[in-house]
Amino acid sequence: MLGDYIEEVILHLKKLKNINWNSVKQLVDEIAFSNSKIFTYGVGRSGYVAQAFTMRLMHLGFNAYFVGEPNCPSIGDGDILVVISGSGRTYSVVNMVKKVRKEGVNVKIVSIGYEGEIGKMSDIHIDVNIGEFNREYFPMGTLFEELAFILLDGIIYLLKRKLNISEENMKRRHCNLL
Amino acid sequence: MLGDYIEEVILHLKKLKNINWNSVKQLVDEIAFSNSKIFTYGVGRSGYVAQAFTMRLMHLGFNAYFVGEPNCPSIGDGDILVVISGSGRTYSVVNMVKKVRKEGVNVKIVSIGYEGEIGKMSDIHIDVNIGEFNREYFPMGTLFEELAFILLDGIIYLLKRKLNISEENMKRRHCNLL
Amino acid sequence: MLGDYIEEVILHLKKLKNINWNSVKQLVDEIAFSNSKIFTYGVGRSGYVAQAFTMRLMHLGFNAYFVGEPNCPSIGDGDILVVISGSGRTYSVVNMVKKVRKEGVNVKIVSIGYEGEIGKMSDIHIDVNIGEFNREYFPMGTLFEELAFILLDGIIYLLKRKLNISEENMKRRHCNLL
Amino acid sequence: MLGDYIEEVILHLKKLKNINWNSVKQLVDEIAFSNSKIFTYGVGRSGYVAQAFTMRLMHLGFNAYFVGEPNCPSIGDGDILVVISGSGRTYSVVNMVKKVRKEGVNVKIVSIGYEGEIGKMSDIHIDVNIGEFNREYFPMGTLFEELAFILLDGIIYLLKRKLNISEENMKRRHCNLL
Repeated sequence: MLGDYIEEVILHLKKLKNINWNSVKQLVDEIAFSNSKIFTYGVGRSGYVAQAFTMRLMHLGFNAYFVGEPNCPSIGDGDILVVISGSGRTYSVVNMVKKVRKEGVNVKIVSIGYEGEIGKMSDIHIDVNIGEFNREYFPMGTLFEELAFILLDGIIYLLKRKLNISEENMKRRHCNLL
Repeated sequence: MLGDYIEEVILHLKKLKNINWNSVKQLVDEIAFSNSKIFTYGVGRSGYVAQAFTMRLMHLGFNAYFVGEPNCPSIGDGDILVVISGSGRTYSVVNMVKKVRKEGVNVKIVSIGYEGEIGKMSDIHIDVNIGEFNREYFPMGTLFEELAFILLDGIIYLLKRKLNISEENMKRRHCNLL
Repeated sequence: MLGDYIEEVILHLKKLKNINWNSVKQLVDEIAFSNSKIFTYGVGRSGYVAQAFTMRLMHLGFNAYFVGEPNCPSIGDGDILVVISGSGRTYSVVNMVKKVRKEGVNVKIVSIGYEGEIGKMSDIHIDVNIGEFNREYFPMGTLFEELAFILLDGIIYLLKRKLNISEENMKRRHCNLL
Repeated sequence: MLGDYIEEVILHLKKLKNINWNSVKQLVDEIAFSNSKIFTYGVGRSGYVAQAFTMRLMHLGFNAYFVGEPNCPSIGDGDILVVISGSGRTYSVVNMVKKVRKEGVNVKIVSIGYEGEIGKMSDIHIDVNIGEFNREYFPMGTLFEELAFILLDGIIYLLKRKLNISEENMKRRHCNLL
């Protein structure tokens, strides 16, 4: 039965290849060619996906912060905020994006998930195009979170390649205390 | 290029179907047929995977705790500890497993990752069988973490099915505050 | 100079004794005489204070959750939400309290901090009465956070005493894995 | 009764003034006059105290990391590790300090708590000198955690003063997203 589950994941991963390549490329370029800070946020399992992405950005040498970490600073002009929300309307993510917009700082907001309210307020929106799926296999946001995890690892791969960063280099930055 | 990346993930997901079904079934049975507490642990990205799993266990109605959470209690006789470590020898995971073994409580230890030192001390070990892979695509533990994320979601699916828990039920337990 | 700092803390601790005893007693009674779940929340350093409080509630045997933990469930009728905000108007705390109020569940909301917008929406409000203080010693919310930390430990003491729970009992619940 | 509790805290705060001033001054100087990264760690409530300290170090402009945060990098020559352990022998703190010592990097280790095993391996040890206390008021590590919280805020005050950093400056760095 686990085999059926994996087949179902593969089915949806294949569809992920039809993702809007342009929006992915924009995000990669935003991150690669800036000296700005990169903030990430998400609630629940989307938050864990965001934290996993943040750690890899740090490994690549970026100043990345998951919102809520002890050392997360203020966001300001030129910074990037990447928010992950499968539904596109997670309450505290909506509120955070509204706050950034209201404060008038020049932040590039990137959203990943169903377009919803959050996507409409974002500068770059990456829709993972889930479409129809079998809810027995993937209750709640499960399928989205799996695809987002893999997509963001793919974006790390694109950044690593574009900036020609070796795995050795990444390892040297890896926290060696735990 | 993201398409190539996804193809590579699919390649390894297919191999995941050859996983030792028996050890997966043991873990599902341990969790399903016990009233014990389930503790999870992992460092770095494996830790985020563990937290995502913990949240789904809570949605299914289990008493699950990621070690280090404010409300994580003591572990005792009959409890389950699920540790995630790609290398099978993450320093603080090794130390935690040793501590449990030394204290002589009757804890079922389940490890997920390369067998290594941790697997040897575990009651149930689930090896995700990564084998050879292209390190350009998957630096550090990336491939393992992706497969572990999907495997654990698959285990949630098996538990949900075995215990006949509806998605509605899971949603009712979902934290509605953020 | 650290001596001067400590003297200044003592000065404000003495004022803390004039706290509205009635509201503190209400919170103690709410927690002591209910079988409900207790949720805590706060942002930044107030959040760490809330987590420290949550851990002690667990040691006393309560079902306590810091909002955002992997195992934090949904809040429902009869539950208690304790929010900590020095200013009384922390953005995401305001939003959380509004959400609870809008959803119409019968949650007892307890706020700790300056009254502000949050206090006005709460069922029980505990003002730590900071008044004037030397901002050189206590930048930002420092003084509030120190007083809140000690006040909440005092509330733990009152609960422990009221319910006649021994330190041994608390220790037995303490997470023994790290 | 809360009044009695506060009186008891004040009693011990007064004793805190007899702390070894020299070791506190060493820590302040280490942090103030270096360009190094500052890592903090602690388990349970000591960990929340460490996170509250880390946030203030960031507000002062330092590169500070609580070990386990998504963006926590590797520790290296010239860096500082501040560990908090009331007992001086918290398992994972002992292991972390041993790991740093074994790897031979030139890290300045600062411990706060009872001397114990951890203090013996540290370069600077700050003992909060708790001595005798009433365990009814302060179960487990409660008193230590309160004193450590205030001591570390005092150290922030000393740093802020020494480096002449304004509160305005600190506020500008404060995370404005939650």
